Amino acid sequence: MNPKKADILIKNGTLLTMEDSSGCISNGILAIRDDLIVAVDDAGALEDWQPGRVIDARGGIVMPGLVNAHTHAAMTCFRGLADDLPLMAWLNDHIFPAETQLDYEKVYRGSLLACAEMIMSGTTTFCDMYLFEEAVAQAAADAGMRAVVGEVLYDFPSPNYGEIEQGFAYTENMIARYENHPLVSVAVEPHSPYLCAPALLKRAAELSRSARIPLVIHLSETKNEVRQIQQRYRRTPVAHLAHIGVLGPQVLACHCVELTDEDIALLADFDVKVAHNPESNMKLASGIAPVPELLDAGICVGLGTDGCASNNNLDQFSEMGTAAKLHKVGKLDPTVMDAQTVLSMATIGGARALGLEKITGSLAVGKRADVIIIDTAKPHLTPLYRPSSHLVYAACGNDVDTTIINGRIVMENRRLPDLDVEAVMAAVNEIALKIRKADAAQDRQKAN
Amino acid sequence: MNPKKADILIKNGTLLTMEDSSGCISNGILAIRDDLIVAVDDAGALEDWQPGRVIDARGGIVMPGLVNAHTHAAMTCFRGLADDLPLMAWLNDHIFPAETQLDYEKVYRGSLLACAEMIMSGTTTFCDMYLFEEAVAQAAADAGMRAVVGEVLYDFPSPNYGEIEQGFAYTENMIARYENHPLVSVAVEPHSPYLCAPALLKRAAELSRSARIPLVIHLSETKNEVRQIQQRYRRTPVAHLAHIGVLGPQVLACHCVELTDEDIALLADFDVKVAHNPESNMKLASGIAPVPELLDAGICVGLGTDGCASNNNLDQFSEMGTAAKLHKVGKLDPTVMDAQTVLSMATIGGARALGLEKITGSLAVGKRADVIIIDTAKPHLTPLYRPSSHLVYAACGNDVDTTIINGRIVMENRRLPDLDVEAVMAAVNEIALKIRKADAAQDRQKAN
Repeated sequence: MNPKKADILIKNGTLLTMEDSSGCISNGILAIRDDLIVAVDDAGALEDWQPGRVIDARGGIVMPGLVNAHTHAAMTCFRGLADDLPLMAWLNDHIFPAETQLDYEKVYRGSLLACAEMIMSGTTTFCDMYLFEEAVAQAAADAGMRAVVGEVLYDFPSPNYGEIEQGFAYTENMIARYENHPLVSVAVEPHSPYLCAPALLKRAAELSRSARIPLVIHLSETKNEVRQIQQRYRRTPVAHLAHIGVLGPQVLACHCVELTDEDIALLADFDVKVAHNPESNMKLASGIAPVPELLDAGICVGLGTDGCASNNNLDQFSEMGTAAKLHKVGKLDPTVMDAQTVLSMATIGGARALGLEKITGSLAVGKRADVIIIDTAKPHLTPLYRPSSHLVYAACGNDVDTTIINGRIVMENRRLPDLDVEAVMAAVNEIALKIRKADAAQDRQKAN
Repeated sequence: MNPKKADILIKNGTLLTMEDSSGCISNGILAIRDDLIVAVDDAGALEDWQPGRVIDARGGIVMPGLVNAHTHAAMTCFRGLADDLPLMAWLNDHIFPAETQLDYEKVYRGSLLACAEMIMSGTTTFCDMYLFEEAVAQAAADAGMRAVVGEVLYDFPSPNYGEIEQGFAYTENMIARYENHPLVSVAVEPHSPYLCAPALLKRAAELSRSARIPLVIHLSETKNEVRQIQQRYRRTPVAHLAHIGVLGPQVLACHCVELTDEDIALLADFDVKVAHNPESNMKLASGIAPVPELLDAGICVGLGTDGCASNNNLDQFSEMGTAAKLHKVGKLDPTVMDAQTVLSMATIGGARALGLEKITGSLAVGKRADVIIIDTAKPHLTPLYRPSSHLVYAACGNDVDTTIINGRIVMENRRLPDLDVEAVMAAVNEIALKIRKADAAQDRQKAN
């Protein structure tokens, strides 16, 4: 028999396919050709293949790359600028003033840094909402990352556009430009029911339906938001969106901390997807999202880090550990959010939430090769009884050794062959000098 | 002027002294001679020194080594053996049966692995409670770690002793043996009010007072424990210990999840120290300890990981991030448990909790040189506005580059010069093979 051709063959690892809960091949091989996974098999199949190159996983774990279902990548520029403050002081005195300084170049630099960080912690796909989103798309493409990007839309001028008309035009241009891009796709991203009037939200929903792309929105993040929306529309934020015809299977609702039982039923009825951001919700003291209830209702939940001004990193391993533990203590039940459930949320669940489940989120023949290898030969990952346990409860992003996206090796042995990480960090350090100066001036102004 | 002599001089780092909340020297030097810190100064003092060797912190953070105020080091052997189970099934069907297999050798191997993991994640001191504690002491000494060790005492035979008499004799032998040890000291460690009758607890308290050493005990960890103790003694666990004369400034109470206001007042009155273990409390669904209230009451609180069967790692950086965020969401207040407070708990607070505040926990001339260097030239730690923010909210144990304990470099550039980490891991992997086999047999027996 003629050997089959592969560009990359990964051997000597435990394959966690995430195709189903038992999808574990203890000594497996994974073959990649061009941008596709062409084999997921046991070690016996090794000799069938003639690979361009072989990667030895050395007993580590081979799994689908993680999907970060909600972030604001360029907020790396504000990492640690201000913490431990009341929400409004944090936003009004630090984050909003800092954001007025942003432009295409700064968002590009900040996003490129985020891509480096995500690649180095095993994330292969992210969903972004921010300003100057063309810059995020460019950064993702340059870093070789899969991304769903969307310009944030609201009813007042943004640093990137004057009128909402321009915001929609910007979004439509991006949709056309990235229609056939191998890595980047576009979403319509109205900020939230409290910053977007019904007219904007309806128009966004129409665009997402006609273009068949996701609509990403912050929803029911805080008690305060729910109170505001109830005062304004006499409905919860979820009921409000249902009422004006926005909800549907293409909607990705981020946060969903403050939900009533009726809200959960509505989200389930409309097949809305949810992005859960436990570390941000904890750090900003928003609350604990009812994720076990959402999952019980059959709702697809992905996991996200949110921006790293409120986290303060983009490490999905840390996020998995937090998600697993937070709900246990929240429910006083150690059996909720088991490791496999949380791993699903961070992989195939996130892919489904972004409408990318045919492309990524699991190791399956025919899917794009978005694959990571975790080095488990370390004290904190020894011994290894069950891979899923270590990934959720013991590992951190630094344990990822190799990251492959769309068939391309973007990190190997912790080195990024195509990204000058030193230069990427230096560029953001330079941006930070200006931000720090303006932030200090703001503080002085405040003190006077 | 003649230059002063130092064995090690660390330069080019931001010194976080933890001596007080403003203790930050942005370009500092730290000089070590023998086992002591002999200078904490700014860069201008560099030329005063003639060092044996210079460590360049390359712009990173230099800070006191972390103190893990409560762990069971050898439980590394059971890391990830069983998770996501009801507490009693986890204990009775997995952990307790596995523990019957332990002996001196296995505890030594497991503890040595824990030491490697702790050194690699910046912990320089740990307080341990377990079986065969002589083995833990030996492992700590061999790894060069500072440790407070104590054989667990309870009213039934342990795998290490038949009668409690032998348990006390074992403890007294250890006290004598380690009286003048440079790294290891001994505590009296009755397990808890629910596994120790008043007679045992009183005797333990007497021993800790006469020997002037800490008494370490699990206290008010779960609602169930409180219920049990109240039924048995008609008092809360804290009030019970106060009533029988156990409480005092030498007592380190671990967990303290379920406390009444009266309990907190008692702990404050008796100057009891508390070890907070947020990740374990979350994973086992025990609850959220009232740490902001404990701190408000002026109680000294250290931070611990607990054993890594319920965590599942010994990473105090992860524990700091969790502590900071958990209480924010618990109180719905983003200002509680700010970064500096949490850093204090993990350093000088932990040292104070163990009665070691004159020796370790901060960078001060005359203290033992327990020092770590964090490499901040990484994407997830870029940019750097405030060191304390990154340490608590963005860093992880892997970011520690260099660890010095008692003046000895035990890790440099992530390499442990005096510990064969591969061999340490291999030894525990071998132990795990047997544990896995017995655990599977237990599962089969249970199924029949």
